[in-house]
Amino acid sequence: MLVVMHTNASQEQIHLVCDAIQKMGLSPHPIPGAQRVAIGITGNKEMVDTNRLTGMAGVLNIIHVTQPYKLTNREMKVDDTIVSIGKAKFGGNNLTVIAGPCAVESEDQYVSIATEVKRYGAMMLRGGAFKPRTSPYSFQGLGEKGLQIMAKARAETGLPIVSEAVDTDTFDVVEEYVDMVQIGARNMQNYSLLRRAGRSKKPVLLKRGMSSTIKEFLLAAEYIMSEGNYQIVLCERGIRTFSDYTRFTLDISSIPELKKLTHLPVIADPSHASGKREMVIPLSRAAIAAGADGLIVEVHTHPEQALSDGAQSLTIPMFERMMEEITAITRTIREHNGKMERGGSQARAQAVCR
Amino acid sequence: MLVVMHTNASQEQIHLVCDAIQKMGLSPHPIPGAQRVAIGITGNKEMVDTNRLTGMAGVLNIIHVTQPYKLTNREMKVDDTIVSIGKAKFGGNNLTVIAGPCAVESEDQYVSIATEVKRYGAMMLRGGAFKPRTSPYSFQGLGEKGLQIMAKARAETGLPIVSEAVDTDTFDVVEEYVDMVQIGARNMQNYSLLRRAGRSKKPVLLKRGMSSTIKEFLLAAEYIMSEGNYQIVLCERGIRTFSDYTRFTLDISSIPELKKLTHLPVIADPSHASGKREMVIPLSRAAIAAGADGLIVEVHTHPEQALSDGAQSLTIPMFERMMEEITAITRTIREHNGKMERGGSQARAQAVCR
Amino acid sequence: MLVVMHTNASQEQIHLVCDAIQKMGLSPHPIPGAQRVAIGITGNKEMVDTNRLTGMAGVLNIIHVTQPYKLTNREMKVDDTIVSIGKAKFGGNNLTVIAGPCAVESEDQYVSIATEVKRYGAMMLRGGAFKPRTSPYSFQGLGEKGLQIMAKARAETGLPIVSEAVDTDTFDVVEEYVDMVQIGARNMQNYSLLRRAGRSKKPVLLKRGMSSTIKEFLLAAEYIMSEGNYQIVLCERGIRTFSDYTRFTLDISSIPELKKLTHLPVIADPSHASGKREMVIPLSRAAIAAGADGLIVEVHTHPEQALSDGAQSLTIPMFERMMEEITAITRTIREHNGKMERGGSQARAQAVCR
Amino acid sequence: MLVVMHTNASQEQIHLVCDAIQKMGLSPHPIPGAQRVAIGITGNKEMVDTNRLTGMAGVLNIIHVTQPYKLTNREMKVDDTIVSIGKAKFGGNNLTVIAGPCAVESEDQYVSIATEVKRYGAMMLRGGAFKPRTSPYSFQGLGEKGLQIMAKARAETGLPIVSEAVDTDTFDVVEEYVDMVQIGARNMQNYSLLRRAGRSKKPVLLKRGMSSTIKEFLLAAEYIMSEGNYQIVLCERGIRTFSDYTRFTLDISSIPELKKLTHLPVIADPSHASGKREMVIPLSRAAIAAGADGLIVEVHTHPEQALSDGAQSLTIPMFERMMEEITAITRTIREHNGKMERGGSQARAQAVCR
Repeated sequence: MLVVMHTNASQEQIHLVCDAIQKMGLSPHPIPGAQRVAIGITGNKEMVDTNRLTGMAGVLNIIHVTQPYKLTNREMKVDDTIVSIGKAKFGGNNLTVIAGPCAVESEDQYVSIATEVKRYGAMMLRGGAFKPRTSPYSFQGLGEKGLQIMAKARAETGLPIVSEAVDTDTFDVVEEYVDMVQIGARNMQNYSLLRRAGRSKKPVLLKRGMSSTIKEFLLAAEYIMSEGNYQIVLCERGIRTFSDYTRFTLDISSIPELKKLTHLPVIADPSHASGKREMVIPLSRAAIAAGADGLIVEVHTHPEQALSDGAQSLTIPMFERMMEEITAITRTIREHNGKMERGGSQARAQAVCR
Repeated sequence: MLVVMHTNASQEQIHLVCDAIQKMGLSPHPIPGAQRVAIGITGNKEMVDTNRLTGMAGVLNIIHVTQPYKLTNREMKVDDTIVSIGKAKFGGNNLTVIAGPCAVESEDQYVSIATEVKRYGAMMLRGGAFKPRTSPYSFQGLGEKGLQIMAKARAETGLPIVSEAVDTDTFDVVEEYVDMVQIGARNMQNYSLLRRAGRSKKPVLLKRGMSSTIKEFLLAAEYIMSEGNYQIVLCERGIRTFSDYTRFTLDISSIPELKKLTHLPVIADPSHASGKREMVIPLSRAAIAAGADGLIVEVHTHPEQALSDGAQSLTIPMFERMMEEITAITRTIREHNGKMERGGSQARAQAVCR
Repeated sequence: MLVVMHTNASQEQIHLVCDAIQKMGLSPHPIPGAQRVAIGITGNKEMVDTNRLTGMAGVLNIIHVTQPYKLTNREMKVDDTIVSIGKAKFGGNNLTVIAGPCAVESEDQYVSIATEVKRYGAMMLRGGAFKPRTSPYSFQGLGEKGLQIMAKARAETGLPIVSEAVDTDTFDVVEEYVDMVQIGARNMQNYSLLRRAGRSKKPVLLKRGMSSTIKEFLLAAEYIMSEGNYQIVLCERGIRTFSDYTRFTLDISSIPELKKLTHLPVIADPSHASGKREMVIPLSRAAIAAGADGLIVEVHTHPEQALSDGAQSLTIPMFERMMEEITAITRTIREHNGKMERGGSQARAQAVCR
Repeated sequence: MLVVMHTNASQEQIHLVCDAIQKMGLSPHPIPGAQRVAIGITGNKEMVDTNRLTGMAGVLNIIHVTQPYKLTNREMKVDDTIVSIGKAKFGGNNLTVIAGPCAVESEDQYVSIATEVKRYGAMMLRGGAFKPRTSPYSFQGLGEKGLQIMAKARAETGLPIVSEAVDTDTFDVVEEYVDMVQIGARNMQNYSLLRRAGRSKKPVLLKRGMSSTIKEFLLAAEYIMSEGNYQIVLCERGIRTFSDYTRFTLDISSIPELKKLTHLPVIADPSHASGKREMVIPLSRAAIAAGADGLIVEVHTHPEQALSDGAQSLTIPMFERMMEEITAITRTIREHNGKMERGGSQARAQAVCR
């Protein structure tokens, strides 16, 4: 349920409404938007009796949300959420690319890749320190040592870093080093991990599970938000289908669908979706053209030597090319939208989906 | 198997090689390319003894193709096939859009839609006269009357027309009226229909079956080509997955994959893939950005009155907007490719997939 | 819509109701059951005004069917349809197995397999004469010659035969020779072929499409029934999923679901579902235990020499074993049901699904 | 890699081989079988130089295992693993059913259900104390209080209990109370949880992930075994497909496939696979007929009042009926196998899969 406040409602009025909600045994979640504040209500199992709220000062109206996801719902917050991590901004009118190798292997390897991807426009660095591997006998990552290497690359390049926390045990150490914590596809319904991420002060990169519906994906984000962390970037990374020539099937339609249903930023991971280097550039162009707010891609200076997923890593020249092409496509779409609409991220969101 | 001829092999040399192949009880398929002719061989169940061919004048070398599809294989013909239907050209550097209503309903309706879509850049008209419907109790189309209406629209607009042949019984009448015959997704493995299409002089628009692998899709095209009709446009139209918020899941990766594996042009159908009007523009942009040679989309002047699939039809203003955006994206990609490569469709095909 | 007649309604009363329905521009389909006749109505696009029918003599009540499938719906006909082909009976309390090689290869091969499968309890013979093959270069079957061989095997063994009609062109010749015409999975939405089958006097074995929902499967049967042929046996033969260790995934739940939704008999094809000989016996047991009315299995005296699908064919000793096991399971379930219920196929249908 | 010891190899010889393996920097896993011991070797990234082992006393031969799963592989241990929990035995010739409500709600509810299911043959009790729920706003279980209630039911009935550990944080408390720890489908690739389960002394019930391949499933079990816990029961619980009339699609073929590939016991969960009470009996019969070693089913004395998943819970009379039917089917299959084969679980495993 959502209490929509007047444009000119005072902070005190908002405060009083939140108080009233708490007295009803429910949790208020004030969500500031560009023009007004809305207050999400969670904790209710049944229809809430809203008589007490309807008449309060500053209340414009009350919306009963039927979807099971509430805080993630664009109906509750029309404006795009912008997740800012240093200069990297996800959502709104930003095009933001995260790049780096699948796994952190050594300081030399990682810093040299970081320097290169920064040169061609990456705004953030990725890298696996704790790796979730299908087989117990595969390389499992360097652990904290890997995070330390990433922190050095941050110091050298000035770019923020993101790495995956694979469990609640190692969440603390990952959180300590990184600027954004990734929850991987295999953990999308690991609810303890989602709740732990919800109690973090760091933004979260949440990847869609490989057999997750859109509703389940938003409910996973809802787990994080319901604990108080609203800084979430969603990532489409391919779903499991009968189709067998790519590792997963990039669900391109999920991008405009998510942009319509939620205010959270949405990026795509064409590297894991396809598992094939040659596919990454066309899929990157497609994801951006479909309305994605950015990408996360694997890049390696020497893909043939990578310890993990080398076959899907872009070379540096391919990354350069990709950046040029998606920048040009974004400019094209924006110019065109500019002609037709008077700015604002809301308008853009509609433009993407109309 | 493929016999690659010298660049300067004479017509007579080519003729003699074909003769020799026929004497071996096999079928030769000369495939002219930009620089040379290659001769596909079909009809062999086992390895062909190629000694007789190797030494013949004009023969450069012989390639044993391992994939079960042969004539559709880009290894056998590196250059893009360009399917030309009047001014509408599919493949190469062309961006070609087919538009129109799902079903032909009346002359007024159809001609007015045709006029509008032409105004905004459609190069070809679509329309269902014989409709394959899941339920026997749904509207099944106007039949030949529908084709006559389409022919009138062609006369008025000058645009060629495409309509679906749902069976061998009605193939003749469809073929008589249209400029390109469509084989629908449900019929992708209707081998009699494919063979009939292979004996047609008209180009064929072949839609991917909803649970068809890439290999099965190319083998369906192979059925058509093996009967002698090489004018085929492939169409990705969504596959069946667990994902439930769109009717089908547009398999965007199939576009670069098909462009790599086959020389045939590839277009996308975002209307049937999504079943939702609001999705059609972003998916159209994505398909073009992924390297598609064009689109087939449903457009209606009054979607709310459509007898069939109104919910997925674009309005005229949306179609106008879509055309502008995909044209801009195509120009962007091409300019960019122009900077990096010395032209030719082969280079473009590589560019798309690199 | 369904007009349910009184138990003791006379033939004339039924006739008069049918007349009235026809005068309303609709088609009546009298469906005789064990206790009463119901009259299905098709042809209506909107709600039918039933005032004229309600008051007619012999009419008990009128049911508005909401599902798009009508004639196949168990709500319209509670009793199992029993499809009888000589001594082979599908539905009711019968367990009926169809067996034979994938493709008819020669008279010797076919007759010897037929003799063997009869010895161990097969009630009907299968065999491919016209084969739908994914590749145009694969063995396409012996055609009419194959049907002639099957007819000889029928003469020798006394068992009826079933073979696939792959298109409307060859339907006549298949229909002429066989006792039941098969519509294959790839043709489940080939509506012209379904309509042709609907005009046949021969029973139809309809296989589920590999990506067909239950609703689409019943609507395909509805196409056949709406033309007047009510003798249909449904066959679950595996669906396409991400799972990659069998060719298709046998959708075992479809069996009790279909038994609940429709009065038509339901059998399973474990050979095509799995593509692996070693799977056929356990899947056969499972299908029967789930409530299937029978099986269609591939058997070969020399599977290693089969021209088509040898890897999934049972040997004769395996077939013997399978027959013993499924017979024992059927006896077990029946005895058990016998203890709990007072007979009748309706009770059995409920038992299967409760 | 697997070192197969002579039938009459002494404990000391086995010990010396294990020592030698450890000196090579690898981990030995002695696996006692009915006739002989085999020693699995893990920890190797490359081919192991086996010269040192080949000549040692008591060594019969050395098998290089190519599959990525090793300890779970039936090639490494031909005999069925039998997981014994009190009188409940999984594997071998046992048919073992786990039953109980989805969630533990109250002592009265739980004990009364436990008493009833014991009466009709359940060998073990299930119940959710910590519940993984898709929405953060759904009932999450009673936690430790729920486990205490289950322990009381164990004291009253004498039946062992199984409950799910949803994360490493609550693993300890679950492990303390239960006799077998369940890892749920959503956690099948939660590697920290798998490793924790691998360090437990309690047996583990591992459910297949909803989009997991057979190989990934066995690798998840491999994670547990590689930490030293060999007491694992695998559970097929339905996969995600396009099919939409059941919650998941029970992959019945996975049962014979798993019985062939691994020595671990395999059971099925028809309640979660279908989500529909009416489906549970036919699917239970099918799973047992396909070769499953047992079932886990949801039963409730008052399903309409259940806080969680009531729609899929069997009533007590339905449970009674199910037990009778699967017992009869098991007897039937066993009698039949008895006629043809000279006992032993190996023979049975072959029988199931042949």
